[in-house]
Amino acid sequence: MSRRLALVTGVGPGTGASIVRRLARGGYEVAMLARNEDRLLALEKEIPGTHAFAVDIGDEHAFHAVLDRITGTLGAPELVIHNAVAATFGNFMEVEPAALEQNLRTNVMSLLHLARKTAPAMVEAGHGAIIVTGNTSSWRGKSNYAAFAPTKAAQRILAESIARQLGPKGVHVAYLVIDAVIDLGWTRAKHPDKPDDFFIQPRDIAEEVWHVAHQPRGSWSFNVEVRPFGEYW
Amino acid sequence: MSRRLALVTGVGPGTGASIVRRLARGGYEVAMLARNEDRLLALEKEIPGTHAFAVDIGDEHAFHAVLDRITGTLGAPELVIHNAVAATFGNFMEVEPAALEQNLRTNVMSLLHLARKTAPAMVEAGHGAIIVTGNTSSWRGKSNYAAFAPTKAAQRILAESIARQLGPKGVHVAYLVIDAVIDLGWTRAKHPDKPDDFFIQPRDIAEEVWHVAHQPRGSWSFNVEVRPFGEYW
Amino acid sequence: MSRRLALVTGVGPGTGASIVRRLARGGYEVAMLARNEDRLLALEKEIPGTHAFAVDIGDEHAFHAVLDRITGTLGAPELVIHNAVAATFGNFMEVEPAALEQNLRTNVMSLLHLARKTAPAMVEAGHGAIIVTGNTSSWRGKSNYAAFAPTKAAQRILAESIARQLGPKGVHVAYLVIDAVIDLGWTRAKHPDKPDDFFIQPRDIAEEVWHVAHQPRGSWSFNVEVRPFGEYW
Amino acid sequence: MSRRLALVTGVGPGTGASIVRRLARGGYEVAMLARNEDRLLALEKEIPGTHAFAVDIGDEHAFHAVLDRITGTLGAPELVIHNAVAATFGNFMEVEPAALEQNLRTNVMSLLHLARKTAPAMVEAGHGAIIVTGNTSSWRGKSNYAAFAPTKAAQRILAESIARQLGPKGVHVAYLVIDAVIDLGWTRAKHPDKPDDFFIQPRDIAEEVWHVAHQPRGSWSFNVEVRPFGEYW
Repeated sequence: MSRRLALVTGVGPGTGASIVRRLARGGYEVAMLARNEDRLLALEKEIPGTHAFAVDIGDEHAFHAVLDRITGTLGAPELVIHNAVAATFGNFMEVEPAALEQNLRTNVMSLLHLARKTAPAMVEAGHGAIIVTGNTSSWRGKSNYAAFAPTKAAQRILAESIARQLGPKGVHVAYLVIDAVIDLGWTRAKHPDKPDDFFIQPRDIAEEVWHVAHQPRGSWSFNVEVRPFGEYW
Repeated sequence: MSRRLALVTGVGPGTGASIVRRLARGGYEVAMLARNEDRLLALEKEIPGTHAFAVDIGDEHAFHAVLDRITGTLGAPELVIHNAVAATFGNFMEVEPAALEQNLRTNVMSLLHLARKTAPAMVEAGHGAIIVTGNTSSWRGKSNYAAFAPTKAAQRILAESIARQLGPKGVHVAYLVIDAVIDLGWTRAKHPDKPDDFFIQPRDIAEEVWHVAHQPRGSWSFNVEVRPFGEYW
Repeated sequence: MSRRLALVTGVGPGTGASIVRRLARGGYEVAMLARNEDRLLALEKEIPGTHAFAVDIGDEHAFHAVLDRITGTLGAPELVIHNAVAATFGNFMEVEPAALEQNLRTNVMSLLHLARKTAPAMVEAGHGAIIVTGNTSSWRGKSNYAAFAPTKAAQRILAESIARQLGPKGVHVAYLVIDAVIDLGWTRAKHPDKPDDFFIQPRDIAEEVWHVAHQPRGSWSFNVEVRPFGEYW
Repeated sequence: MSRRLALVTGVGPGTGASIVRRLARGGYEVAMLARNEDRLLALEKEIPGTHAFAVDIGDEHAFHAVLDRITGTLGAPELVIHNAVAATFGNFMEVEPAALEQNLRTNVMSLLHLARKTAPAMVEAGHGAIIVTGNTSSWRGKSNYAAFAPTKAAQRILAESIARQLGPKGVHVAYLVIDAVIDLGWTRAKHPDKPDDFFIQPRDIAEEVWHVAHQPRGSWSFNVEVRPFGEYW
């Protein structure tokens, strides 16, 4: 395997696909994970050097099997982007406890599984990076985010714990807070009156992911935040 | 039922028991929850107005059954102290993923179940309080707390989400960060060379819980922190 | 001097006066500082054991002279409440730089002078407390608080630095964030349509100050926050 | 004036000079400010397109005069890097109050003066950036930083207030926390036993400043942090 391998979870039509495009353009072979196989296959056809792996990463056994398959066929990733996310909205009386459990599995447990599977090869190589995408829910719990904000906070703190363990071994872990509504079909439909400037572009997020993933090891960021210029915060 | 009812989870020999004593002394009937039935029965015998309910609150069905039993026999609690905690130490490669899952159940899911069961009666009464005890792991992820810190961060943010929902309805939710080693048999054994001042006393924690639980509704705290005077922070 | 002495800066008609009343009721002799002498003399007349010291604490020399006079006549305070505050509103283009300088003097420099004058006697006695009152501007900079938020952030961090120095010597320093509009004549006039519940009561703030000032030294808070139950945060 | 103009304060031999080099290499004309004129003249000679302006920015009148001179001769800067810093170490009893006042002038007041002078042209142009360099003292007050941490906290919060005002007008303000000891002659002398990896390189800081200053306006960072891979945090 002469090209560097990246692995991206949560490759939907928005941020995930943009990250894949940026990495492929930058010379990476990319293993793409998501539940929707058709979408992955279309991307695989469109972007050279990308590989579709359909899986529900909230299903621990299926996730492990796919990770083994990737390593077996493509080798060990030196860059991992954990972009998959499960979300449910509502206050603590409205959400089902099962929804919080499901979101914890996809957002938190899968990061632990992913890091445990991919970090050892990075540590052996003496370099590598794991970047997790998040949002302001990882910092605060608004009432309507009872089944979501706790999972992103747990994810951020887990990433921080992993970062502190892996940093001195040369492996970079970072957490990117996207403090904005991402420009997607469904978010446009939900905010029909907002100007273009209101939305953050997936390609801009991908550019920031690229930057952080390639910071020199003498100067790493852990907490990273991006928002459009007009965002109220 | 003429006396006010409080419910305390995690009634071990330290903080939990001290909170129970403080509440009983302050005039509450107290439902005590913990896994260790012998310990609860001993407390029940010792402290008038306390009631033992042995249960593993990480077991959702058993927990629901006990909460129903409490309501059926003692009525609706107007004060709930979530002090139960499950902890596992080690970095992300050392801990078992199952340990993180277990800690999420006991620390996070049980808070959601508890709040959903007990908040409606408080909202109907127009007053009540839910206090959760935590520690600095709820704010940061050190490398050796990979299976613990994420669960406390999720717990704090879930409490915050519940606080924002219940506040305007007159129900007070607060999160108490205990930034110190609690004075217990096993912590003394683990830190044999530390002076008495190094440890925080369960009775002092209980006093702060009492204070926060009884703040006038015009002046509530959500984030609360306590540490001994000599603590390095 | 058989009674304990407290010193309160910023004794206006609201929070300051309420704190003075609470302390006097709790058995303290109270040295009251503010610019408005008439108001102080009226309080002195009304509340036994209180003493008026009119001064602009932003004037370093006058402030030092008054502190010396207090110590000379009443002795060394064992409790100091820094409640004086200078505020100017507007964005960074609207405010005069001189306003920021003035607010830094009253809010930050005066805390340093006050602590340097009063802490040594507390350290020698092995106990004492310095409580500073603040607000959410100490945590974030909204655009209209360009000449105010920086001064409260500096004040909070200075208090934190002092707390870390004095804690191990038995002297308690805490910072109280009042996350609400205080119920005063001018704030009522500014928010004529708000219900009573919208405002935080000076007497409730005073009660929390009392609590924090008297926490046992095995269980101190540094960051303290209070807000009315209905506050949006 | 066909080339873009940048303005950098605090151009010493370390971070400041590295930022100047990076900006010049990237095509900027650079106005360099610092107290040490010899050093500035040497840089001016060495790096084409740089201009020396010796001044003590803590002296308000001299600072204003220099800013006017720059605008008059080189035009309006579209990129401003506030890197000047005044520091004094010691706990609150050891430091002179005058030292805190001086540090407030250089670190906080000068940022206000600088932003007021340079932002209007940026707003009129509809773009521009102001980047402030800081460190972890802007987030917390250790006991030995009594005359320094409050000034950096105030500076960060002032930058945040300015950012919120200028963002919607197309002008980007960011605060870069350098969580490490910078590799300089005097820091090497102070930490003779530390390995190279312990220090953060000025050129890496300059690279991050460049990145943040040129983020697309749909994806800006305000809080930015960098530290070497082995840093304990």
